[in-house]
Parts: sequence; structure tokens; C-alpha cells
Amino acid sequence: MDKSENRNTPINEFGKFRLIEHITRKENPVNQSTVTGIGDDAAIIDSGHSMSLVSTDLLLEGIHFNLIYTPLKHLGYKAVIRAISDIYAMNGDPEQLLVSLGISSRFSVEQVEEIYEGIYLACEKYSVDLVGGDTTSSLTGLTIGVTAVGRAEKENIVRRDGARPNDLICVTGDFGAAFMGLQLLERERKLFVKEKVAQPDLSGYEYIIGRQLKPEIPVSILRELREAGIKPSSMIDVTDGLASDLLHVCKLSGTGCRIFYSKVPIDYETSKLAEEFNVDPMTPALNGGEDYEMLFTVPLELIEKVSNLKSVKIIGHMTSEGTSSSIVGDDGSEVDITSMGWK
Amino acid sequence: MDKSENRNTPINEFGKFRLIEHITRKENPVNQSTVTGIGDDAAIIDSGHSMSLVSTDLLLEGIHFNLIYTPLKHLGYKAVIRAISDIYAMNGDPEQLLVSLGISSRFSVEQVEEIYEGIYLACEKYSVDLVGGDTTSSLTGLTIGVTAVGRAEKENIVRRDGARPNDLICVTGDFGAAFMGLQLLERERKLFVKEKVAQPDLSGYEYIIGRQLKPEIPVSILRELREAGIKPSSMIDVTDGLASDLLHVCKLSGTGCRIFYSKVPIDYETSKLAEEFNVDPMTPALNGGEDYEMLFTVPLELIEKVSNLKSVKIIGHMTSEGTSSSIVGDDGSEVDITSMGWK
Repeated sequence: MDKSENRNTPINEFGKFRLIEHITRKENPVNQSTVTGIGDDAAIIDSGHSMSLVSTDLLLEGIHFNLIYTPLKHLGYKAVIRAISDIYAMNGDPEQLLVSLGISSRFSVEQVEEIYEGIYLACEKYSVDLVGGDTTSSLTGLTIGVTAVGRAEKENIVRRDGARPNDLICVTGDFGAAFMGLQLLERERKLFVKEKVAQPDLSGYEYIIGRQLKPEIPVSILRELREAGIKPSSMIDVTDGLASDLLHVCKLSGTGCRIFYSKVPIDYETSKLAEEFNVDPMTPALNGGEDYEMLFTVPLELIEKVSNLKSVKIIGHMTSEGTSSSIVGDDGSEVDITSMGWK
Repeated sequence: MDKSENRNTPINEFGKFRLIEHITRKENPVNQSTVTGIGDDAAIIDSGHSMSLVSTDLLLEGIHFNLIYTPLKHLGYKAVIRAISDIYAMNGDPEQLLVSLGISSRFSVEQVEEIYEGIYLACEKYSVDLVGGDTTSSLTGLTIGVTAVGRAEKENIVRRDGARPNDLICVTGDFGAAFMGLQLLERERKLFVKEKVAQPDLSGYEYIIGRQLKPEIPVSILRELREAGIKPSSMIDVTDGLASDLLHVCKLSGTGCRIFYSKVPIDYETSKLAEEFNVDPMTPALNGGEDYEMLFTVPLELIEKVSNLKSVKIIGHMTSEGTSSSIVGDDGSEVDITSMGWK
């Protein structure tokens, strides 16, 4: 970028991924232990006989969470999930966690305790040790910085850039539920504020609310994969949205992709609420985000092994570079994924 | 804490360190690789033949920096210094860095570039590889999350809790300069706003301004210590203020301390500006913070070796548990350090 020409490029015009790419320098690392740089779920650091994986996340009030409908305990839980999900997405196991909190004076000690209750709960569930952290004052909103440290044998690490044409595109769980859960919470909040409705009506939508407030990582499925001897050629955790994360893998792997409309797993509650909102359920499924499911590719020759795993769904396949990334409708029509409302 | 009794304990009443202590659970770690938990400069993780050190920091606009007098490049530089300083304070060497930025839409791409210029500059100077990070939107101020990963041989690691009575208290550099630099910038800013002074007058105070805007870590002195075969019994980097950080080491080591008023190194510019402000120069020196100098203790028998190092100053000694932590004036009078205006 020529600085003299334009000193004020708005970030929105640039886009997040392009910005990261723009500021990332492709220099050779100085330290022998540095294996990979910016670009994957977690950084890989050579620590002797195994690899350390380190990932860090920043959660900001009003962007990543809204305290109006996020109980503090759930917020703490979710912050841990977000950080360790990156380690699992490299096919590693998280072991340590560091948490930094920026809290304004409007918070009480008991509220900070609640956040930590959620943090410790997630740490226990996923066998992670909280080893560091700090609290600091904040003049603005609540800020949470989470760093996860994990471990993997070198040969087991799965990156985002390893997919090849014809690889099967597989997913765990279902998509769009967390996003629709948030839409429901938002709708009920508005009713509460505007029409003084005393109690939000969330009945019949317990699953999608749970997916929004207390997401879990499909660890047992990752274990099944290992036990079945299936090593994915690429993997990413779906946090930005299935479409965005799939396109990210395509870009890094140098492939196109083709997924099938009828194969994308969507829960009944997600579909039902999407209909209430007059939205095609595929829109939250592709673009919603915060699913914390795994998206991975496996070589075509493993199709039988993968098909045997009930908890894994094959939703499509990778295509060669230069081909488009499309979604195939039930009638055989193909639509570009990027034009499906994804930005 | 009995929650039913009091659900709203203000955080200010509690204090930062008590809060961290309060929320920290003293459970046995789940993972073998977890060596220490919360409490030191960095977490220690056993990674086979050497130890990984991980530290994380959160920098919030309005709390840790003010964009009015912090150029963005300096801010990026300082964020790196803050994070890697924790690794050096464990007697380790930083090797990798992860940075997360929370930026509001008022920022331009060029401004983000400036922050990263500073980050890369510090990375180069201290031989650290930038291996990860993310940018995210922020509704409020600029937020920077920095995680540093370092390495040390097990036997070389120096913790905060290893000081023993009679150990010599040593420091690098001088104290209070960064704080007085900030006071000067703040004064000139007010003049600029209120009295429309066109250009701030910082002449004669270049050193303390530099200490505020572009701090450095005394790496060469740490190297000298290693070469002289001096392994400190405890060490901490002085970021919260000499008094606070010394008392922290005392508390964790179970000692008292005695330092000498005339021995605390204070630069001429710091003293001169303190006088202009009608403040005892010892106040910023003890309580200012952001010095990024090292405070460490060595066993008394190493007094000759330490005295030979010109860049290390001995400012006092540790005392046995139960004794007070005091500063001794030139006339022999002893004052409790905590009563010196430190909060």
C-alpha cells in the first residue's frame, strides 16, 4: 500500500482477513522453535519431542457478547470454549489456560467470581489447568483475553491448508443453532424492553438457547476419528460461520469446493425459528457462526471409514483450484457460496 | 466469601492482588506438563527437556495508554515490551509472540499498520517471532492482547518466591522516569488544550519522555548476570512500581525487607521534574511503575560478584518473616514502605 496516496483506508472496506494478511510479514522466523506463523487456529512451537500449540482470543463486550442475555458464568465458560476450540482444531489437546480480565468498577467481586466459576467449570470438563492471568481496570466494557496452550505429536497436527481436490468435506454436529438462539434472546429482550413482557418465552427452543449460551466442543468425535485411524487433511473450528470457515480452508489449501444443500445438518429448532423469522434456515447455517463444530476434510479413499462414524456428516467435496466454491441445490442447481449472503 | 451475606463487594475495596488470590483455586493440576499456576510473571509449562514460559497481558485504552500522547508505533512497541518483560523476569528468553487487536471503526488500515510497525520493530530488536494473532472489532476503545512464549532450562528459572532473609536486593536502571515522563506529557497536553500552546515544550526531558514512550528491557544486564554465574534467588520486572513489586516478592517469599533511601537510583531528569511538581522524587521512584527494570535478590555470599557489575545497584536486603518492609533514610530513620503513599 502506498502510504502517500491514501492515509485513511477504512477498515470495513478492507475486511478482517485481508487486514491480517496485509499486516503479516512473511519473514523467516528467528527462533528454531517457531514452526508456523499467523494464519492457522493456533501457533505451532517446537518444544523438543512434542509440539506446543498456542492460541489467543480477545472477547469484547458488545461485540462478542452482550451482558443483557449472557449470564456471567456462561460467559466465562464460553470464553474457555472459544480458546481451547482452536487447539482441538489443530488436532491437539489443550492443557493450560491463561485468562486476563479487564473489568470496570461497576463490577462487584461476586460478579468476577461468577465469571471464574464458568471458567473453572469448563477447565474441569476439558481437563485444562488455569495457570495464569490477571485482572485489570477497564474504563469501557468488560474485556476477556484468553490464551490456550496445548500439545500434539508433530505427526498428528492438522492444519487449515492441507485439503486437496476430491477430499471429502466433513462436519460434526449441526449449524446455525447458536445464531438462531441469539436471535431469539434478542427478540425476547426487545419485547421485554418495549412491551414490558415480564418473562421471556423460550420454551421449545431450549436446544438453540443452550447452543448460544453454553457451547461444547465435539471432543468425543475427534477421539473417534483418532481411534478409527482417520487423520483429516485439514481442519478448522466453525466460529465465523460454516461458509466463511470453509472458504478459509479452500483459500489456504488452494482448492475450490462443492457442498450439498440437503447435506448441511440443521437442527429442527433452528429450522423452525428461521421459518418464524421468514429466513431460509441455510442462511444461519452457513453464516451464523459460533457453532464450535469441527469442519474437516479427509482423502476420498477414507470414505468407507468416515461413513461408519454416525456423528460425522459428509457434506461435499473439495474441487481443484480455480473452480468456484458452490452449494448444490436439490434440483442440481449450483450457487456460489459467497453469494449466499456471506460477507 | 458467603454469597448470601453480601452480593456486591466493590472491587476497589478488595484490591487487585486480593482479588486474584481470591479467585485462584489451589487445586492440583490435571496435566503433568503444568508446573506452576497463577502468581508469577509467567506460567511454567514442562515441554520435555526445557520449560516453556507463557505470559499474557491486556492493554486497554484509557487505562494502560492514552492515544493523545502515545504514537501508535510506540504503543505497539510498548505492548511487546510489556509481554516479553515477564519472560525475562523468569530468567527465560522470549521466542514467540501472539497479538490480538480490538479496533473500533474509527481506525484506519494505516493506523493498524503503524501499531504493527512498532510490534515488528520490538520483535526484531528482541529476536521474537510473531506467530499468531487476530483483529476484531471493538465498540469502545482500542484493546491489545499480547501473549509471549519463552523458554528456559529448568535449573535457570527464577521465580518471585525464592528470596530468603539477608539476600541482597538488587535493581537495574533507575526508577520513576516513565511516570514523570507521563506527568510531563499530561501537563503539556493540558496547556495545549486550555491555553492553546502550539507546541509542547519537552526539551531537557528527552530521557524521561523516552522512558515513557519507548521503554527497553535491560537484557544485557541479565546476560552479564548469567556470565558472572549469578543466579538470582528471586526476580520480578518492575511494572507496578518498585514498592509494589518489592512487597509482592516479600509476600510470596515470606520475608520482610529493608531498602535505603539514598541507594534507590533516580535519574537527574526525574528528580528535576519532581521538584518542579513539588514532589519528593522518591514518590514516583517507589510508586510510579512502568520502569521495565529488573528487581532481583541474590544470596549475601555473592556480594562481591554483584558489586563488580557496574550496571547493578544493591539497594537493600531482605529481612526475616514478620519484620516490616521499610525504607531507611539518610539519618537512619525507618519508614514503612506501605505508608510511603503506596496503595
